Amino acid sequence: MINRLVAQIKKTGAPIVVGLDPMMKFIPEHIKEKAFAEFGETLEGAAEAIWQYNKAIVDAIYELVPAVKPQIAMYEQFGLPGLSAFYKTVQYCKEKGLVVIGDIKRGDIGSTSEAYAVGHLGKVQVGSRSYYGFDEDFVTVNPYLGSDGVNPFIKVCKEEKKGIFVLVKTSNPSSGEFQDRQIADAGNRPLYEVVGEQVAKWGETHMGDTYSYVGAVVGATYPEMGKVLRKIMPKSYILVPGYGAQGGKGADLVHFFNEDGLGAIVNSSRGIIAAYQQEKYARFGAENFADASRAAVLDMKEDIEQALANR
Amino acid sequence: MINRLVAQIKKTGAPIVVGLDPMMKFIPEHIKEKAFAEFGETLEGAAEAIWQYNKAIVDAIYELVPAVKPQIAMYEQFGLPGLSAFYKTVQYCKEKGLVVIGDIKRGDIGSTSEAYAVGHLGKVQVGSRSYYGFDEDFVTVNPYLGSDGVNPFIKVCKEEKKGIFVLVKTSNPSSGEFQDRQIADAGNRPLYEVVGEQVAKWGETHMGDTYSYVGAVVGATYPEMGKVLRKIMPKSYILVPGYGAQGGKGADLVHFFNEDGLGAIVNSSRGIIAAYQQEKYARFGAENFADASRAAVLDMKEDIEQALANR
Repeated sequence: MINRLVAQIKKTGAPIVVGLDPMMKFIPEHIKEKAFAEFGETLEGAAEAIWQYNKAIVDAIYELVPAVKPQIAMYEQFGLPGLSAFYKTVQYCKEKGLVVIGDIKRGDIGSTSEAYAVGHLGKVQVGSRSYYGFDEDFVTVNPYLGSDGVNPFIKVCKEEKKGIFVLVKTSNPSSGEFQDRQIADAGNRPLYEVVGEQVAKWGETHMGDTYSYVGAVVGATYPEMGKVLRKIMPKSYILVPGYGAQGGKGADLVHFFNEDGLGAIVNSSRGIIAAYQQEKYARFGAENFADASRAAVLDMKEDIEQALANR
Repeated sequence: MINRLVAQIKKTGAPIVVGLDPMMKFIPEHIKEKAFAEFGETLEGAAEAIWQYNKAIVDAIYELVPAVKPQIAMYEQFGLPGLSAFYKTVQYCKEKGLVVIGDIKRGDIGSTSEAYAVGHLGKVQVGSRSYYGFDEDFVTVNPYLGSDGVNPFIKVCKEEKKGIFVLVKTSNPSSGEFQDRQIADAGNRPLYEVVGEQVAKWGETHMGDTYSYVGAVVGATYPEMGKVLRKIMPKSYILVPGYGAQGGKGADLVHFFNEDGLGAIVNSSRGIIAAYQQEKYARFGAENFADASRAAVLDMKEDIEQALANR
């Protein structure tokens, strides 16, 4: 799957992943009205609105980008109906040929981590049969519990030729509270570097053709740290959140890429899916929100292209 | 809810939480056969088997213990039908008067963490109405992303009078890979102590009568570390996994309790729910698995009582 991700990035020329994080305030009124008319102001109504919103955006952008990243929390908050919309979104994106990165940030120990891995990437056994649960292509994983938490994911990834992105340095303002602490027995280097080294080691155990199936999450908001981590994990794809709404700019992104122009994939969520709410794309209007998303993808692609050309 | 948890611990005299982690290999054949006869060897069949298994155990133990801790991964692996069984289990345990700790180990940033908090502890807004999603009483939270990840949970906890347990030192063998690293700018003390100090600070912002709504997870397998963390977080309830199957013994547990005999609640999962598979409880047979679970709870209660009496 990492080979397919790299191939699709090359084909589209867009190292971009569209974050499908459908907050209710992003969804145009006409979609909500229609969904509520059919299902009422219920969890099912919210789930229907999310699904119709996602579908329109995916239809508008699937030829332009290699991958999407649905954020499961935005579905899970609507309980079982919300998770049903997550499932439908994952399957639809796969039908459209997109690589699906489930942003689930799971992590536990032993058989429990294996259960998450099985539920999101693999097949679960029921008597003599086996079934896929949510069946994403990649998922994000939290490293706090150490190898016991990550290795069960890698085991399932090997069986399924799928991959993970491990949280290393997250994009949020307070990510430094623990991630930046200096580790005395590692030459006073920060924890995120120690985690990055471990990601590189985990990655060696499951390599694709040029990159590993074990990638990392490093926020666009910390470009200098990205520069260091790029070198520590040369074979790991870096999933870069924080572009756009969180403040990351095209010029900040160049450090996350290798010399070959590969090695990073940049996420934008609200900057694309709620583009129609920005002044820049207001001309599209709420009715044509998906066209606004398409325009925002093309602008983001150009921004990254220029930044890479100018480095 | 922390006040209710403390009250129920006092009332039952059992600082015990039963981990409802229903792996298929724990479920007696007669339950699986009946569920598969009705739903086939499908995800729905697995979910039905899990639900019937849980229900029988809860019926046998609900008067003896204050709380249960369903591990969501064990349900999530069966996709949407599995999560439906999780939902039913949570609601049933609440009807029976049990405090429900959702072991979900979620954690993200800002609005995303808030979505998890809303989905598991609070109410989500849909148009002019609002709905509970999974509606647990407490959840476990991963601290790797810092305050941005934890504060949204505390916000919802304040609205709902609910609580969280933050992962500090987990029970697994490799938990030390990152959690034990020495922090140079904290006097070379380990990361778990730094996280523990932060838990104490978060806890001050949301206090119950004697204990905070913000608790911590510290593994029974590391009793010496538990001793230190008990002092660092005097007002935080400690949720202690790792008793029984993972190797923790009654004598190891005393350090997690305060002098008042409170301050800790010990989890046992397979040691109770799959007790009938142990030689010690084999006399019950698979048909009477729930009675074996009841006996195992009583033995665990006595083990902890004796350990606390002997300290």
